Amino acid sequence: MKPYVLGIDIGGTNTVFGIVDARGVVIASGSIKTAKHSKIEDYIDELYTEATRLIKANDAEDKIYGIGVGAPNANYYNGMIEGAVNLPWPSPIPLAKLISDKFGLPVAITNDANAAAIGEMTYGAARGLKDFIMITLGTGVGSGIVINGQVVYGHDGFAGELGHIVVKRNNGRLCGCGRTGCLEAYCSATGVARTAREFLEIRQNEPSLLRNMPIEEITSKDVYDAAMNGDKLAKEVFEYTGTILGEALADMTVFSSPAAFILFGGLAKSGELLMKPLREAMDKNMMPIFKGKPKVLLSELKEADAAVLGASALGWEAKPLESAPAAN
Amino acid sequence: MKPYVLGIDIGGTNTVFGIVDARGVVIASGSIKTAKHSKIEDYIDELYTEATRLIKANDAEDKIYGIGVGAPNANYYNGMIEGAVNLPWPSPIPLAKLISDKFGLPVAITNDANAAAIGEMTYGAARGLKDFIMITLGTGVGSGIVINGQVVYGHDGFAGELGHIVVKRNNGRLCGCGRTGCLEAYCSATGVARTAREFLEIRQNEPSLLRNMPIEEITSKDVYDAAMNGDKLAKEVFEYTGTILGEALADMTVFSSPAAFILFGGLAKSGELLMKPLREAMDKNMMPIFKGKPKVLLSELKEADAAVLGASALGWEAKPLESAPAAN
Repeated sequence: MKPYVLGIDIGGTNTVFGIVDARGVVIASGSIKTAKHSKIEDYIDELYTEATRLIKANDAEDKIYGIGVGAPNANYYNGMIEGAVNLPWPSPIPLAKLISDKFGLPVAITNDANAAAIGEMTYGAARGLKDFIMITLGTGVGSGIVINGQVVYGHDGFAGELGHIVVKRNNGRLCGCGRTGCLEAYCSATGVARTAREFLEIRQNEPSLLRNMPIEEITSKDVYDAAMNGDKLAKEVFEYTGTILGEALADMTVFSSPAAFILFGGLAKSGELLMKPLREAMDKNMMPIFKGKPKVLLSELKEADAAVLGASALGWEAKPLESAPAAN
Repeated sequence: MKPYVLGIDIGGTNTVFGIVDARGVVIASGSIKTAKHSKIEDYIDELYTEATRLIKANDAEDKIYGIGVGAPNANYYNGMIEGAVNLPWPSPIPLAKLISDKFGLPVAITNDANAAAIGEMTYGAARGLKDFIMITLGTGVGSGIVINGQVVYGHDGFAGELGHIVVKRNNGRLCGCGRTGCLEAYCSATGVARTAREFLEIRQNEPSLLRNMPIEEITSKDVYDAAMNGDKLAKEVFEYTGTILGEALADMTVFSSPAAFILFGGLAKSGELLMKPLREAMDKNMMPIFKGKPKVLLSELKEADAAVLGASALGWEAKPLESAPAAN
């Protein structure tokens, strides 16, 4: 069996790719700008040129078993990207076929959060777990659900959108999906910044380190730094965020009774600022039969490698799209 | 292969059992009172005596492949009943082993809602569906989740408690599980009666047919009858109930993206009184990527047979509990 897979993580800004071995070691990696090409064919051409250069430089020609791709709104079943607002090309995009045809290799694609879940199961904190839920806390809130050792894709390939569970039924914040009150509008990095702005506006007379910067420029990192410097308002932003996330995790538990939730992404690195209120709210809101059962773990994948690793793990299950054998 | 299975549905009041063939025809059935025996061993003895009598009367000796059991809080993985408040025996109960030892046949058990989902998949509205969610609207709200053709049991065997998703985060009604605001406290038969009482108390000056009976004796059937007679308040009780259920189904969709929800139980037979507000709320609250996708179907199993049929379908996948072959 060929010893390597190629992992490709397509983000709105950068596309990162890497050659990965069966133990999850990233042998070499590279990147291109996702939005540089307005035509998807030109993008695929550059991706092929750069990835091939990397493969040749590492003597990995004829050693790539398959390609795994993590991309926004990517559908595992049909290899298409549908309705991805963060990518510069019109949907639907037959991504798996385009890459497979160009590289002459089998390709499997899924969305970024599912790729992260597969990576965590193959190489990270979920090794040995058959039932867990990956929650990615980044610009948005993504999720990858694993039940009985298999990623949940649902009947149409789009299952696992737990960032869009409604946590505020009335007067909720507007979400990027067009509805209101979604988890993502509160417990993402963007949500933390929104909460900080709300708190600052509502509590006009309360001093805060966050008043030293223009309110519209506040980021979740600013809120974190202020909280670590003892700022009361900033600490309460994390309490608010952690409480909503803990309530949501308790609700998710009644669905699939996972052994663990695995948190990933920038916000997951907020330490006890986030984790203490999260654990308290989760425990307080947990249905008795599940009390104390699901663990909350942090991702064990290195941030720099995680996206590529997760995507690459999918490469091991890639099958040729057509019945004809792959050229390579 | 032996042509029949024995299905056993254990409820708090009655235990119904039936001999079922591979096409889902109930050849013969019988029942005993669940709560008659304070000792579980005596209950198993009577169940064995009565079921054996039925089997002999139908020339089905040596023709039973396995036994499937639906029971409250029954755990598919370990064959135990744990913490079932509606049964007269102390938990944990090694139910699968007790029945298997007595009958000399392989036994598989699961909770009633999962059994209903298996029955619907094998014989009913979910034939051909690999991803669906069964919602049972009875005294409580139960659920059986099927993903990729398999019932979701979770890491501990207790997954699929969708009646305990929190639909009112603040000031929610007390639920039987000890928490507040659960779906079950609103969208069960009991929940409908509670809503009617609330509406009657809050809207003191509004006439209603429901004021003709003692408020504490109102049942969901009374509310249904009043609504069918044009009672405005009673109709609004169903609108309230259907709206909450529709919102909840939209939320469940982001988890597993089912092709359909299948409603079962007395309340599911309320027709457009319930279904119209349910469909409207589901559509209004559906994340755009899932809009118009999941169907809402009614169970196709005959109410009288459904519980036994669902349990019996599990009998086909029963395996001997111990390595020794079953006596029969």
